[in-house]
Amino acid sequence: MSDKKIKRIGVLTGGGDCPGLNAVIRAVVKTAINKYDLEVIGYQDGFGGLIKNMALKLDVAAVSGILPRGGTILGTTNRDNPFKYPVMQDGKRVYVDKSDEILTNLREHEIDALVVIGGDGSLSIAREFWDKGFPVVGVPKTIDNDLSATDVTFGFDTALVTATEAIDKLHTTAESHHRVMVLEVMGRYAGWIALHSGIAGGADAILIPEIPYQIDNVCNKVKERLARGKKFSIVVVAEGAKPLGGEMVVQKIIEDSADPIRLGGIGNLTAKQLELCSELETRVTVLGHLQRGGSPTPFDRLLGTRYGAHAVHILMEKKFGEMVCLRGTEIKSVPIVDAVKELRRVPPDGDVVRAAKSVGISFGDE
Amino acid sequence: MSDKKIKRIGVLTGGGDCPGLNAVIRAVVKTAINKYDLEVIGYQDGFGGLIKNMALKLDVAAVSGILPRGGTILGTTNRDNPFKYPVMQDGKRVYVDKSDEILTNLREHEIDALVVIGGDGSLSIAREFWDKGFPVVGVPKTIDNDLSATDVTFGFDTALVTATEAIDKLHTTAESHHRVMVLEVMGRYAGWIALHSGIAGGADAILIPEIPYQIDNVCNKVKERLARGKKFSIVVVAEGAKPLGGEMVVQKIIEDSADPIRLGGIGNLTAKQLELCSELETRVTVLGHLQRGGSPTPFDRLLGTRYGAHAVHILMEKKFGEMVCLRGTEIKSVPIVDAVKELRRVPPDGDVVRAAKSVGISFGDE
Amino acid sequence: MSDKKIKRIGVLTGGGDCPGLNAVIRAVVKTAINKYDLEVIGYQDGFGGLIKNMALKLDVAAVSGILPRGGTILGTTNRDNPFKYPVMQDGKRVYVDKSDEILTNLREHEIDALVVIGGDGSLSIAREFWDKGFPVVGVPKTIDNDLSATDVTFGFDTALVTATEAIDKLHTTAESHHRVMVLEVMGRYAGWIALHSGIAGGADAILIPEIPYQIDNVCNKVKERLARGKKFSIVVVAEGAKPLGGEMVVQKIIEDSADPIRLGGIGNLTAKQLELCSELETRVTVLGHLQRGGSPTPFDRLLGTRYGAHAVHILMEKKFGEMVCLRGTEIKSVPIVDAVKELRRVPPDGDVVRAAKSVGISFGDE
Amino acid sequence: MSDKKIKRIGVLTGGGDCPGLNAVIRAVVKTAINKYDLEVIGYQDGFGGLIKNMALKLDVAAVSGILPRGGTILGTTNRDNPFKYPVMQDGKRVYVDKSDEILTNLREHEIDALVVIGGDGSLSIAREFWDKGFPVVGVPKTIDNDLSATDVTFGFDTALVTATEAIDKLHTTAESHHRVMVLEVMGRYAGWIALHSGIAGGADAILIPEIPYQIDNVCNKVKERLARGKKFSIVVVAEGAKPLGGEMVVQKIIEDSADPIRLGGIGNLTAKQLELCSELETRVTVLGHLQRGGSPTPFDRLLGTRYGAHAVHILMEKKFGEMVCLRGTEIKSVPIVDAVKELRRVPPDGDVVRAAKSVGISFGDE
Repeated sequence: MSDKKIKRIGVLTGGGDCPGLNAVIRAVVKTAINKYDLEVIGYQDGFGGLIKNMALKLDVAAVSGILPRGGTILGTTNRDNPFKYPVMQDGKRVYVDKSDEILTNLREHEIDALVVIGGDGSLSIAREFWDKGFPVVGVPKTIDNDLSATDVTFGFDTALVTATEAIDKLHTTAESHHRVMVLEVMGRYAGWIALHSGIAGGADAILIPEIPYQIDNVCNKVKERLARGKKFSIVVVAEGAKPLGGEMVVQKIIEDSADPIRLGGIGNLTAKQLELCSELETRVTVLGHLQRGGSPTPFDRLLGTRYGAHAVHILMEKKFGEMVCLRGTEIKSVPIVDAVKELRRVPPDGDVVRAAKSVGISFGDE
Repeated sequence: MSDKKIKRIGVLTGGGDCPGLNAVIRAVVKTAINKYDLEVIGYQDGFGGLIKNMALKLDVAAVSGILPRGGTILGTTNRDNPFKYPVMQDGKRVYVDKSDEILTNLREHEIDALVVIGGDGSLSIAREFWDKGFPVVGVPKTIDNDLSATDVTFGFDTALVTATEAIDKLHTTAESHHRVMVLEVMGRYAGWIALHSGIAGGADAILIPEIPYQIDNVCNKVKERLARGKKFSIVVVAEGAKPLGGEMVVQKIIEDSADPIRLGGIGNLTAKQLELCSELETRVTVLGHLQRGGSPTPFDRLLGTRYGAHAVHILMEKKFGEMVCLRGTEIKSVPIVDAVKELRRVPPDGDVVRAAKSVGISFGDE
Repeated sequence: MSDKKIKRIGVLTGGGDCPGLNAVIRAVVKTAINKYDLEVIGYQDGFGGLIKNMALKLDVAAVSGILPRGGTILGTTNRDNPFKYPVMQDGKRVYVDKSDEILTNLREHEIDALVVIGGDGSLSIAREFWDKGFPVVGVPKTIDNDLSATDVTFGFDTALVTATEAIDKLHTTAESHHRVMVLEVMGRYAGWIALHSGIAGGADAILIPEIPYQIDNVCNKVKERLARGKKFSIVVVAEGAKPLGGEMVVQKIIEDSADPIRLGGIGNLTAKQLELCSELETRVTVLGHLQRGGSPTPFDRLLGTRYGAHAVHILMEKKFGEMVCLRGTEIKSVPIVDAVKELRRVPPDGDVVRAAKSVGISFGDE
Repeated sequence: MSDKKIKRIGVLTGGGDCPGLNAVIRAVVKTAINKYDLEVIGYQDGFGGLIKNMALKLDVAAVSGILPRGGTILGTTNRDNPFKYPVMQDGKRVYVDKSDEILTNLREHEIDALVVIGGDGSLSIAREFWDKGFPVVGVPKTIDNDLSATDVTFGFDTALVTATEAIDKLHTTAESHHRVMVLEVMGRYAGWIALHSGIAGGADAILIPEIPYQIDNVCNKVKERLARGKKFSIVVVAEGAKPLGGEMVVQKIIEDSADPIRLGGIGNLTAKQLELCSELETRVTVLGHLQRGGSPTPFDRLLGTRYGAHAVHILMEKKFGEMVCLRGTEIKSVPIVDAVKELRRVPPDGDVVRAAKSVGISFGDE
């Protein structure tokens, strides 16, 4: 199959939305058409669009004006794994493999290759299609910046700006009212957003999954500031922060919360604990979905454009099963299979954490 | 007393912080010194600073560079009413009147008049001091824009920008993921922030205290959009929105919440109800303290500067017991007693609500 | 004619572009369709589109997503007066009256009324059509905020934000390098942008058309700051600022400039003069077209929406020959003929200039 | 000397100001005091402060709140090379070597080492001091991002945001008015700002020093867009862009300009040429000093903090004569002597230019 001349390609976006997706789509479409004279078909709502064959032709006009826009014009979803697709059978939900159906479909529509833009879930699915012989290239997407094969992913810089602006805003209230302000940001397994925004926003403590913390150490930081006349503190907490000896407390909070739209588990807990120990008024803000939205920063628009253009270049070079990545200042590509093996997590002894500690930020570990 | 030449004045900020407070303080200090050759004393942490005599001299250098900064360099607090000051007596909390003590103190320190920057609580206290004969002028402050005597208050425009940016950000996620996004904003008694940001952000429904709503009407709006192929909706809810027939539900939610740092009562409720009725994924964001923070917009810096300068002008004209206000394009002044009588609430039949309904926004009332 | 039931209306945007135009167009279209079941035709590129009959049908989908976007989806132009339309005759340019041709055309296409969004030029043309009996309503547009019939026009707030951000940026360089920074902003006949941004940005001097200045007074301000240890100054100059005794100098600069794309006449002059007199390094920045661009602020989106909705309301009430306006907190309407009679200029003794002088800003007049 | 225990260090900022300088200063001070118990002396206005011994003690309070602020609290200057310091002798300007005087002074004040934050000029001077035996470490600073030893420098990201926002703003006017908009940005020898902002802003042509251009090729791009119905174009020009066969024209423009505050040489030229060839109205904007100003982006605050902390770490490790740098995701250090040898220029065949061409951007070279 891979000797066939490529004439028509498909593109889809999977997983949570992320600023910069439209920059990637635009670059894929423009590069495919301008440089290689290909046709481009967009599949809607991630792999769901492949399954249900929701396709639309993308020409240059279709991607005009989308560069500065957040979200994805193709739609996306966190569900719909074609290899484990849920269907109802005899009143029960069972999972079926739709991949062969999709392959038949793709061949019928003369799609010669797919560009899959997505996180480790979507990229793993992409790799499975390549394992079955269908030409695929990947573009990594994770707002948490936690993919090991690439230095940076698009969307992260925009999320960082949103989180840092939030800290800047909380600062003035904290200072005016002599309060502890807790900000909960994204980061279930990796604390990059908390770490970078916390340093950039001048936080006093940063709590991340990679560095389990004792709340007493954070309290001491707040009290030590009070002793120096600083009657306020800013604490940034990743949603996956790990309280030592506090696992049960967090677990209980989550269980107590009958609420399916739970808000701010760890942020709330931290705020309550700090109010108790510091005797300062404490408030919590959960940034939530704001972190995924908005017009991408120039950095993310540029990175998305470089990724999208390069994805088509490697596709034409038949580097199937690979995904594009940033290494230093250059765009390269690596096998998807290597890229999704492990998370890129904050090294507790790396220079960023060291710099943060040097300027006096507590991670609650000492 | 009011025949005395004014030589030294005090200034304080009371109530919740608000972008533009520093612009007012700066204008008060610069006008007092440049134009009238006065001395200015700043009292810290609202009326608490008067009670505890926490005073600092403010010269031009002290206010240099504060114009673009959020918060208040004087500190503020929502507590500390000098006429009902809580003290412990025989193990019980009792409330005492500290006003005479303060007056003695002010006279001892030769403070000839006070500029009080605050909301209706602080302004009422200011008026009580003037009732007791101490010269006071007021500067109105409310981020909710709900003071009846003035067209606009500083801080509101900045809050509006923060809320509208949030809606802009939620829009892209809502659209990409086919979700209903609910944003809860400030506004316990007046829905100005929800109304203005909802229109500016292109919301599909806006729920405010002044227009009680039936959730079914909001559901119908979401479903009607779905029927037109718009697989997402944005709903902005003021924290004081009034569900018709739903009072008990809201009451129960509040009671169930043992949590003193409760998050998103009405926002959460609305999200759950809309998810049930629309079968779209629904998410809620509670903007909270972010609305009070940040660098004031040019509008708020200008309005704060005009208020501060004018407050000193009317003080020198001995218009005591008055507060400055904006009427149309001009700064004027009115007796505080008239200004704090009633809230400025959204008129349900005013041109803003009418315009919102004209462009298709639902208020849940029909 | 005016007894006829209105079924189809036209809309066009004329003059320089302005943030908020799309909000007006969107509100016109949605109000006309949702509330009154009208058809809406958009004419492209201002009155040029009427002359050349470049029309497109505007439905709700056509205005989806345009609220936060700058510019105008209809296009615009500063030329093309239908009453004095330039054509070539016998090798010479002559001006002809195309208005009857347009009226015939409008009637042929069954356009029952026009909404004209424009500045005093476009509104005067609109009024002439109404004088000839064709139903027209107006929406005022001027980024300079200089229309006398309305308190504020949309676009001004966005321009103000752009200008103030520029001052904020120049501040840090001025301070770090001990320089005088001159910023030239729009305002040929009225100095509103310079005045408001200058106050909001903390400028040291503001030069506007309404208050002729002596450059020596500005120099003295810079030197007086130097004497107090402030080794930098920020000067905001409206492009139409009036140097006393310097008319000839300005005239000469303009004549010397053979360059059709002339940059920064008065800004350059001021910078050179201040460098000479203060012996501080001086730099000039000409903000130019940046002031017209960008996503409208929430204030401008809201005002545009209110204007657009109200324009259709008064159109249906057959208040032809009128334009919408903001008075205090309410949208009203006035005869166009009254509105374009005189410019709204900065009153040199109004409270804004007084506040500016109170905080120490020089206008070069004393 | 280098066996001596380090107890007191000096820090200075040299060259043009740059967003992030304060983040570096803050990290230097906090790291020195918190981690190593050093004293820190700040020298004002670059090497001028060393020559004139303008020093101030920097404690933690001195750097409180400076993280989000542009500029440098220490002041800076482009002049004052201590090895070639201009003095007047017998009515003539001669250059003298002040370095020994400075060394004596530094030793008298018991300064054990210097942290020099600056561009290639300042770093070369720093290296000369180390050549003379005085312990120095460097922190690279260039808003143009053109230092070869480091992947990125702080300030560049902020400049990029300013330039991209400008392009975003010009876009709406260009589109509404059917104009060609030319934006001149910084970049005398390296076109990074033009390249990155041009891609991020969706420019149609980018002209940079590294890729000499024929104006005819740019004209063709504009005309080709016109032919496709795109009646506007955006052109980003670095101030050092190289017109082929046009050197004389540019030279003449510069000579004609008697004006010491010259504005927009190459931008103006390009605008005039494009107006002639495309017959579209064309406007030019010169971004100038706005690019150096403003609050640093989170990226720049973080990078500045990492640089500042690491500079003190390598100083304590006695890696004198070295400067910190970013390589991939890590902060390292390299000998200054290697770092200032050559400029980091845009590789015409690198992946960024390739991506730009893939999405249809013209560089005027073909």
